Amino acid sequence: MDTIHLLVALDQRYLPQLKVLLTSIRLNSPKQRVALYLLHNRFPCAALRQIDAWCRAVGYDFSPIQVEDSLFEHAPVSEQYPREMYYRLLAPQILPDSMERVLYLDPDTLVINPLQTLWERNLDGHLFAAAAHTGKTELVHNVNRIRLGTDCDYFNSGVMLMDLNRCRAEIQTEELFRFVREHAGELVLPDQDVLNALYGNRILPLEDVLFNYDARDYSSYLLQSSGLYNVKWVMEHTVILHFCGRAKPWKAGYMYRFGLLYQHYEQLAGRIWENVNSFEGVLPLNEERACACGKGKSTENPI
Amino acid sequence: MDTIHLLVALDQRYLPQLKVLLTSIRLNSPKQRVALYLLHNRFPCAALRQIDAWCRAVGYDFSPIQVEDSLFEHAPVSEQYPREMYYRLLAPQILPDSMERVLYLDPDTLVINPLQTLWERNLDGHLFAAAAHTGKTELVHNVNRIRLGTDCDYFNSGVMLMDLNRCRAEIQTEELFRFVREHAGELVLPDQDVLNALYGNRILPLEDVLFNYDARDYSSYLLQSSGLYNVKWVMEHTVILHFCGRAKPWKAGYMYRFGLLYQHYEQLAGRIWENVNSFEGVLPLNEERACACGKGKSTENPI
Repeated sequence: MDTIHLLVALDQRYLPQLKVLLTSIRLNSPKQRVALYLLHNRFPCAALRQIDAWCRAVGYDFSPIQVEDSLFEHAPVSEQYPREMYYRLLAPQILPDSMERVLYLDPDTLVINPLQTLWERNLDGHLFAAAAHTGKTELVHNVNRIRLGTDCDYFNSGVMLMDLNRCRAEIQTEELFRFVREHAGELVLPDQDVLNALYGNRILPLEDVLFNYDARDYSSYLLQSSGLYNVKWVMEHTVILHFCGRAKPWKAGYMYRFGLLYQHYEQLAGRIWENVNSFEGVLPLNEERACACGKGKSTENPI
Repeated sequence: MDTIHLLVALDQRYLPQLKVLLTSIRLNSPKQRVALYLLHNRFPCAALRQIDAWCRAVGYDFSPIQVEDSLFEHAPVSEQYPREMYYRLLAPQILPDSMERVLYLDPDTLVINPLQTLWERNLDGHLFAAAAHTGKTELVHNVNRIRLGTDCDYFNSGVMLMDLNRCRAEIQTEELFRFVREHAGELVLPDQDVLNALYGNRILPLEDVLFNYDARDYSSYLLQSSGLYNVKWVMEHTVILHFCGRAKPWKAGYMYRFGLLYQHYEQLAGRIWENVNSFEGVLPLNEERACACGKGKSTENPI
């Protein structure tokens, strides 16, 4: 079975969610080999070591990549447009040239069935595969089309399968930065808007109900499928639940029905990660591997 | 950490549910040592081998015990009162004399947090610890009190921690059989009614919201706790969910909210059990261990 190359890009505030996400991947694809790439800026060494220890324990490769500040010298960066928002679109430039494909996941996703079918999806000449949230009304899609001047669906950027070679050929860093500079003030969800405005017609549509299920929209999915996509169907078929939007299952008062599954995974992750630290043969950690910085392309590459 | 001695008593139709239950125990108590005892009558050898292989893979001891027919020579046995209904109450007579304590679980339970706190509960001179379902109305409890002539709560027999030595001293096989014979026709849930009528005042009450949560009664629990026992609280604190009643989450049309968690565990169990068969070093199985029958007390004891 092929190794899945997994990409996350986040800061240390999302470490708990990353633990939940990785736990869910591990439990739902028990035989799957995974190589994890973490794009970050000043992630604490202790946290990287934790992730490294866990990855070793479960047999995953782990490559933390500290993105160099110099990459953003000419980028419009502000509180509203932090540099992290560019990471996933610049990932093809940042990741090692030898990588051909990567699956990007937001840290508010939960994997509840094997990732393999998604990983093996034929990209058929597209830059990305991504899903539009069909639970939203047509009106919302039309507003986004007009707002961004596109004629395709408004794709969610939380789950993206990327053809890295094609991206390297077609995505120009300066074009990204110019777009943001020229549309400052108009972008609602900056990275997602940029994705759709610049590359919307280069995206292979994925079935959101399978690979980017908006966890708030159970009733819409059920209705649009004439009752087929009930809870049992979702548990059996959906691969990635996406807890998008302002309400989050790790915060108090989350009301949507799949929150309990996320909250159960928080418990599972807590126990599984805690036990890693007591594994014989995992510790002592190789601190150099987790924290030292070798040289990759324009970024620091610690492996 | 002490080994938890776990007891199940079921026929082969419940093998899928046993797999789910064991998977849930393994994932939620990753470091816990467990010895599993299965009381059965003519469980197929192939199924015993499957359980044996899985137990070896995860480090559990497994003791299938075929209960001898001769034990029921003088028992009232019929379609309505199958011999299996006596298994949990006769377990103290059937299990090896060296065992002091066992935790019985129904196959429609799901363990979602560590069992250790329950296992270590001081039985304080009682025969059993068990929970009454507090989500039921007082009226139901009073009807059961009158019906069975007891003055205690009506305890659910799906989760029972047993002091085996005290049970061996106080539970008489003939008394059980006589009670069933004399009350034939009045018993609604035979084994549970017998437990309550004969031993209701020898049971230490457990908190059902923690150890025998009736998965149908979310709203009652929430109401009785003034909103404390919300979904997040249940995921963090409840140890055993009990999918009791006629509706079952493994059947079509289950409507209650924790069904999705059970259905997710069905997927997890499917993958984890399937992979056991490909584990190096687990196969070939020791067929003698799983199927041969040594001599235990009045029953056949294959270990």
